Amino acid sequence: MAKRPLHTDFACPDGKRFSRQGMPEGIYCPGKTILEIISIARRLRSADEKAPVILTRADDKIYRAVKKIFKKAIYNKTGGLITIPSLVPTAFSSSEKYICVITAGTTDISVAEEAAATAEALGVRVRRFYDVGVAGIHRIMERRTDIENAVCSVVCAGMEGALPSVVGGLARSPVIGVPTSVGYGANFGGVSALLTMLSSCAPNVCVVNIDDGFGAGIIASLISRK
Amino acid sequence: MAKRPLHTDFACPDGKRFSRQGMPEGIYCPGKTILEIISIARRLRSADEKAPVILTRADDKIYRAVKKIFKKAIYNKTGGLITIPSLVPTAFSSSEKYICVITAGTTDISVAEEAAATAEALGVRVRRFYDVGVAGIHRIMERRTDIENAVCSVVCAGMEGALPSVVGGLARSPVIGVPTSVGYGANFGGVSALLTMLSSCAPNVCVVNIDDGFGAGIIASLISRK
Amino acid sequence: MAKRPLHTDFACPDGKRFSRQGMPEGIYCPGKTILEIISIARRLRSADEKAPVILTRADDKIYRAVKKIFKKAIYNKTGGLITIPSLVPTAFSSSEKYICVITAGTTDISVAEEAAATAEALGVRVRRFYDVGVAGIHRIMERRTDIENAVCSVVCAGMEGALPSVVGGLARSPVIGVPTSVGYGANFGGVSALLTMLSSCAPNVCVVNIDDGFGAGIIASLISRK
Amino acid sequence: MAKRPLHTDFACPDGKRFSRQGMPEGIYCPGKTILEIISIARRLRSADEKAPVILTRADDKIYRAVKKIFKKAIYNKTGGLITIPSLVPTAFSSSEKYICVITAGTTDISVAEEAAATAEALGVRVRRFYDVGVAGIHRIMERRTDIENAVCSVVCAGMEGALPSVVGGLARSPVIGVPTSVGYGANFGGVSALLTMLSSCAPNVCVVNIDDGFGAGIIASLISRK
Amino acid sequence: MAKRPLHTDFACPDGKRFSRQGMPEGIYCPGKTILEIISIARRLRSADEKAPVILTRADDKIYRAVKKIFKKAIYNKTGGLITIPSLVPTAFSSSEKYICVITAGTTDISVAEEAAATAEALGVRVRRFYDVGVAGIHRIMERRTDIENAVCSVVCAGMEGALPSVVGGLARSPVIGVPTSVGYGANFGGVSALLTMLSSCAPNVCVVNIDDGFGAGIIASLISRK
Amino acid sequence: MAKRPLHTDFACPDGKRFSRQGMPEGIYCPGKTILEIISIARRLRSADEKAPVILTRADDKIYRAVKKIFKKAIYNKTGGLITIPSLVPTAFSSSEKYICVITAGTTDISVAEEAAATAEALGVRVRRFYDVGVAGIHRIMERRTDIENAVCSVVCAGMEGALPSVVGGLARSPVIGVPTSVGYGANFGGVSALLTMLSSCAPNVCVVNIDDGFGAGIIASLISRK
Amino acid sequence: MAKRPLHTDFACPDGKRFSRQGMPEGIYCPGKTILEIISIARRLRSADEKAPVILTRADDKIYRAVKKIFKKAIYNKTGGLITIPSLVPTAFSSSEKYICVITAGTTDISVAEEAAATAEALGVRVRRFYDVGVAGIHRIMERRTDIENAVCSVVCAGMEGALPSVVGGLARSPVIGVPTSVGYGANFGGVSALLTMLSSCAPNVCVVNIDDGFGAGIIASLISRK
Amino acid sequence: MAKRPLHTDFACPDGKRFSRQGMPEGIYCPGKTILEIISIARRLRSADEKAPVILTRADDKIYRAVKKIFKKAIYNKTGGLITIPSLVPTAFSSSEKYICVITAGTTDISVAEEAAATAEALGVRVRRFYDVGVAGIHRIMERRTDIENAVCSVVCAGMEGALPSVVGGLARSPVIGVPTSVGYGANFGGVSALLTMLSSCAPNVCVVNIDDGFGAGIIASLISRK
Repeated sequence: MAKRPLHTDFACPDGKRFSRQGMPEGIYCPGKTILEIISIARRLRSADEKAPVILTRADDKIYRAVKKIFKKAIYNKTGGLITIPSLVPTAFSSSEKYICVITAGTTDISVAEEAAATAEALGVRVRRFYDVGVAGIHRIMERRTDIENAVCSVVCAGMEGALPSVVGGLARSPVIGVPTSVGYGANFGGVSALLTMLSSCAPNVCVVNIDDGFGAGIIASLISRK
Repeated sequence: MAKRPLHTDFACPDGKRFSRQGMPEGIYCPGKTILEIISIARRLRSADEKAPVILTRADDKIYRAVKKIFKKAIYNKTGGLITIPSLVPTAFSSSEKYICVITAGTTDISVAEEAAATAEALGVRVRRFYDVGVAGIHRIMERRTDIENAVCSVVCAGMEGALPSVVGGLARSPVIGVPTSVGYGANFGGVSALLTMLSSCAPNVCVVNIDDGFGAGIIASLISRK
Repeated sequence: MAKRPLHTDFACPDGKRFSRQGMPEGIYCPGKTILEIISIARRLRSADEKAPVILTRADDKIYRAVKKIFKKAIYNKTGGLITIPSLVPTAFSSSEKYICVITAGTTDISVAEEAAATAEALGVRVRRFYDVGVAGIHRIMERRTDIENAVCSVVCAGMEGALPSVVGGLARSPVIGVPTSVGYGANFGGVSALLTMLSSCAPNVCVVNIDDGFGAGIIASLISRK
Repeated sequence: MAKRPLHTDFACPDGKRFSRQGMPEGIYCPGKTILEIISIARRLRSADEKAPVILTRADDKIYRAVKKIFKKAIYNKTGGLITIPSLVPTAFSSSEKYICVITAGTTDISVAEEAAATAEALGVRVRRFYDVGVAGIHRIMERRTDIENAVCSVVCAGMEGALPSVVGGLARSPVIGVPTSVGYGANFGGVSALLTMLSSCAPNVCVVNIDDGFGAGIIASLISRK
Repeated sequence: MAKRPLHTDFACPDGKRFSRQGMPEGIYCPGKTILEIISIARRLRSADEKAPVILTRADDKIYRAVKKIFKKAIYNKTGGLITIPSLVPTAFSSSEKYICVITAGTTDISVAEEAAATAEALGVRVRRFYDVGVAGIHRIMERRTDIENAVCSVVCAGMEGALPSVVGGLARSPVIGVPTSVGYGANFGGVSALLTMLSSCAPNVCVVNIDDGFGAGIIASLISRK
Repeated sequence: MAKRPLHTDFACPDGKRFSRQGMPEGIYCPGKTILEIISIARRLRSADEKAPVILTRADDKIYRAVKKIFKKAIYNKTGGLITIPSLVPTAFSSSEKYICVITAGTTDISVAEEAAATAEALGVRVRRFYDVGVAGIHRIMERRTDIENAVCSVVCAGMEGALPSVVGGLARSPVIGVPTSVGYGANFGGVSALLTMLSSCAPNVCVVNIDDGFGAGIIASLISRK
Repeated sequence: MAKRPLHTDFACPDGKRFSRQGMPEGIYCPGKTILEIISIARRLRSADEKAPVILTRADDKIYRAVKKIFKKAIYNKTGGLITIPSLVPTAFSSSEKYICVITAGTTDISVAEEAAATAEALGVRVRRFYDVGVAGIHRIMERRTDIENAVCSVVCAGMEGALPSVVGGLARSPVIGVPTSVGYGANFGGVSALLTMLSSCAPNVCVVNIDDGFGAGIIASLISRK
Repeated sequence: MAKRPLHTDFACPDGKRFSRQGMPEGIYCPGKTILEIISIARRLRSADEKAPVILTRADDKIYRAVKKIFKKAIYNKTGGLITIPSLVPTAFSSSEKYICVITAGTTDISVAEEAAATAEALGVRVRRFYDVGVAGIHRIMERRTDIENAVCSVVCAGMEGALPSVVGGLARSPVIGVPTSVGYGANFGGVSALLTMLSSCAPNVCVVNIDDGFGAGIIASLISRK
């Protein structure tokens, strides 16, 4: 029943979330018209000029429309994320602190970019290590020092989702596993990867929902700010 | 097939994990004999004197045996957790920083205490708010300021597992949801609570395995140290 | 096999259900041709002039066709519900009595409107509170008195489906949870929300099928009539 | 982890729920010691003398201990429910109004009695029709008039759980389906019956959790009071 | 991977199944080209002139192509079944014997017609009772005598799938439940109806796969021949 | 909640089922006291002297108690089935007609005997072929002629449940698959075998519930009587 | 989120896998652009001239583009597999050794061809036996000697997936079961066949993922080389 | 229904399986009496003196009884496996060839020993690497050369089951994943580990049933003989 029209005046966007909680309410684009998206973006911006506005699962068409109104909007095409930066510069990230965003395969990259772009929108420095899954274990081992020194790591993996456990065995910080819906057959749209990560033998692995790059980016940002 | 004898010489306890990763390898007691438990504890202690040794899912009998060997062992009976403190005092926790450990009901408390005692074993200050589930929403609202100021919150809930979402809407920091196997019928041993937390509308909620208080305590400790 | 032709003469619409049970048989539109829909509507109307005729999951095209035949037909576009009012005015709803129809997010609104429009078709007064989910708990708390005084509340929520439990902790009357298929990943098309509501710690919460706004509206109407 | 000791001082029983919501907080006995049960019962009673105190899933041993303290305690052995009546007589139930509590088989009766005794504790008149499942359809047809005139019906069924649909086709009021964990093989501990009731073709059927007689009794009471 | 080309010379149609087992191998049309379908039909016909050839899940386009080659082909459009009758008349069905094919709703009819047409292709007399689901129980009760005298009954039902249990409580012969993938939400594409039928409290109910009208028709034919 | 006391006066045994439907109501023993079992047996016997009384899932203790009252009671220890024969001799089974009861392994035999003894109680001749599973396919091939000539076959199999498909490819009559809860790991208590049988490529296979030997015996008896 | 653009420079193809492990990294085509596919193929070829390059789930369009660049590319249209042969001839397969690739039905053939073509690309001789499922058991029995002499057998089956167990009872070597997503209703996209094969009573049966012909071909090749 | 008595004369042990297929029929002990076990062992031995007799899931009591009859019986207590060696020496294993049996944790060892002892009973040399799970990845990396040179590897892992993928990325031969039922919460008795292994990104990983050490041992033996 998602195809029915939605009246924007029904929406109650939580414009004070950034000042109250240090993270903005994201605008999830699928199922919303461009008019609705822009209307909500405007209400969020006018409610708090210091808060970046983040649109998730956006596409080119949405970006072009948003760009007309918000000239400073930035588009991460791979991650499908549009950021309308805060009007007040965010400068809280120290120069040394960084998070790692890691993927097992190439098809996990769009989810990883959603996480990375979300963190960057919140002023967090991101290092990316992509396509370093466990079937060629040397690839992740080469990143060992980078992982050890990170404030936290976001690890996106589909299929069997084993990579977060390996990263969890290397890191000195929390590892956020993001199961992706990549794979076929008994992957069941990401459920296998999800169960793998939940059952991880590395105790510093926590998990977010399947394909939820946005949530992982938010949590990584909150950790890096502590 | 868990009832067959295990030879301790087969085990390879990871004695350098604390120095390498800042968290010790926990000894999961169920299915191990007291002799095996003590043997592994000794090997971990001798591998690194600075690392606290943590035994999970322990009972009175195990505690009495451990106490004979390790005089300083501490027992959190409700959480089933025995800590053999580091021989070198851990002093990294600043006096103001704290984490919240929260439960929805009274039956979630044993899991919560496992988390709390793990964090305390790693030098983290813990504030406990128990039996404050959503069916009487005023109870959690009274803790609003405490939650806002915490470094992170661990929220244990069974049945429908809705509490982490509410805490996630109040906190300025990550919320670690711990689904518990409390409830009956369509709770399915914690699966309902697990799915609830994974699908949380609050993006700062991440999740660990069902009843995994130990993992939540480890992650909370790592966050509070950043 | 739903795409094969259906012969309307096979159907046995239960035209006496309204007089027998106080609720009409609804016409579920998907999978039926417009001819079939109108034929069934006519048979229901002629079987009982006092019964309103309700068509669910309808669209604009169906509405235009129905409107030509039944001039008084009313269309709730958001809820996809067409009502052909009773030829005899229904006047049983007292002026003070009302039900609440509540949603967690904006995408739950189409299901909510199906429930609301069904109840209104049966002469029940409806108060709507939309987009008041638990991640911003203050929004539902502001509606506390309205909920306390309602005859019953219909609460539509997808994702983690926690809102009915919170409303159940505030209400003095039954709460009908309607899980919606909104969300992604481990939401599993509404199953997470469904399990959440079934496991609710508030004992006055009962549940209907995923996206079943029509059923919720019927039950709310029957309760408000008692 | 349910077997660890619980400290009653951790519990926050919601003593004002009856005055606030018209239903008491139930004390779920399994996993609690007799001392804890009596302590919570005392706190609930002293918080509100007008509220009946209800203990669910109780056994003979608990009853004997409770009876010593609360002389007026009543024990429904089949339903496992102990009621400590309000000190102020509840007299809100009119003499004609009643609810039906119905079972498909004999093994569903304990769940049904939990529902019936809960409703009776709240002053509701109950009519019982047991062992009237659909394999001998004449049995439920003989109760047709009784069902038509009820304020609502609670229908407990295991195995295939088909009875609520049949009752839903006869009633003029809401039907609360209670799936029971009775059956074997593909019943899956009540899941088959649960899914059956959720998918009911009768729109006036709503559902509570598997074996949740207490919840059904509460909802039936709230409906009968409207 | 079903969309790749299939070479008909790979197929080994079991042309002797009718003479060996009294039932023909059906040609399941989806995923086969018209050329392949006709080629297999020809091979089956030439292998045994006495065997009727049955094509399932066929559509108009397939029918027109088949009709050109096999002039006597009969098309049951609702059931999607094409029958190419035996060249030798089948006359084994006595005049009094019949089976019932019954549906709960109108959307179950296409599955029912697949069953009915299969049985008719094998010379069995069929009586149809459609749209007689349990929400209006009087409809099936009116067919009581017809059901009692049948050789067996095929009962097609989606949603909660309760009808076979009721028929099973009336019949003097086996009842073949056919769960259909009709319904939404917690019906899960027919699984709810399937579990309902498997858990039936009527011991004379057996079950075939979801939407498997062909199988039900075959079994009913074999029973009626005994 | 199955352990609570049951009052036999609540039970409505369907004493006329044998005369109405040609099969008796079975008494499912687990969860019933011996007093209750005997009370129900007496009521069934006195309701219809022509009906055999069948008790399922019985043990030695129940048998000794029943034998004292009903001298002619027969006990099939392996199948756990007690039969109290009709006082009027049943003589309807012709001398040539028989059913096959077949198992894949030795652990399926208790379920098979429940089916066989049920059929024998209703006057049907039974041929048994046990431990003839597909891993040694020659064993079932040796029984080919016996299967071809049977009125129907009951095939009990756990683990992967493949045997009914093979028998279905040999038989000229219906095959009733009975999945058994034998196996470990991914067998899931019989679910794998159940799904296997439902998905059988042999269209003459129908299925009953896991371990439901009684149901299979009833259906086989009804078929053999046609 | 698989539809977003992928940057090939993100990919880290494992060009040394063939020399290191004796099997090449396959290029899984779905979700990649033709440019990306060719870029990865080039990098793999230039990394190791001795390794064959294998592209899976390819179509005609991809083949035409690949053929332009790699003149020796071979296309198995049914299996959707493109092989770019090693520049150095692979000659390790002795003339007598062969594997069997077997299917239950015709619709399993595309998966079987993926397995067969993969093995052939690695220099393994393949014998194919297609459409020999258990419903006509004589078909597989005729291949008994061929199966007994094979180095291993790959058995592809959908629906109930029983064929690997039968082959496992005939073979003197490992049997690799490949469940296919062929079937409808309770097949659940291959899950039934998967569970069947995992629960096989023949201990020499191992299993790969649903529709994973490539994996089966790789394993069969590795076995045939030992 | 597994507790009912079994008559050994019902069993058809497949005494020629070793000569026909090169692997013996195993005797699965649970659910069988000691008398039955010895009777079957005797029949297998007398059917083929060259075949080793293997009893799985045995305990001390069974071993003592077997030892009295078969003086040469060997007991692997950890793996629960009793071997009665062939009367004719098996000498087919070359001195260099070996398989690896690997576990992730200590609790997986009993399953691993079942596999190892089975392979040894069939004359295969086994190298064991235990407790080398991915959370301390250095442990498995130290075994890299041993794995590369093995004929095949059996990898037993519970919890998230990630180890086979890592071994699959190192080996030059097939890897047989054995999911174990070790773990808690969302491990679901081994299902998570099973799904992980089925979805492995390393294409040389195949899978057997949960805890099926015997099957893995058989397959490894058959591979090492090729």
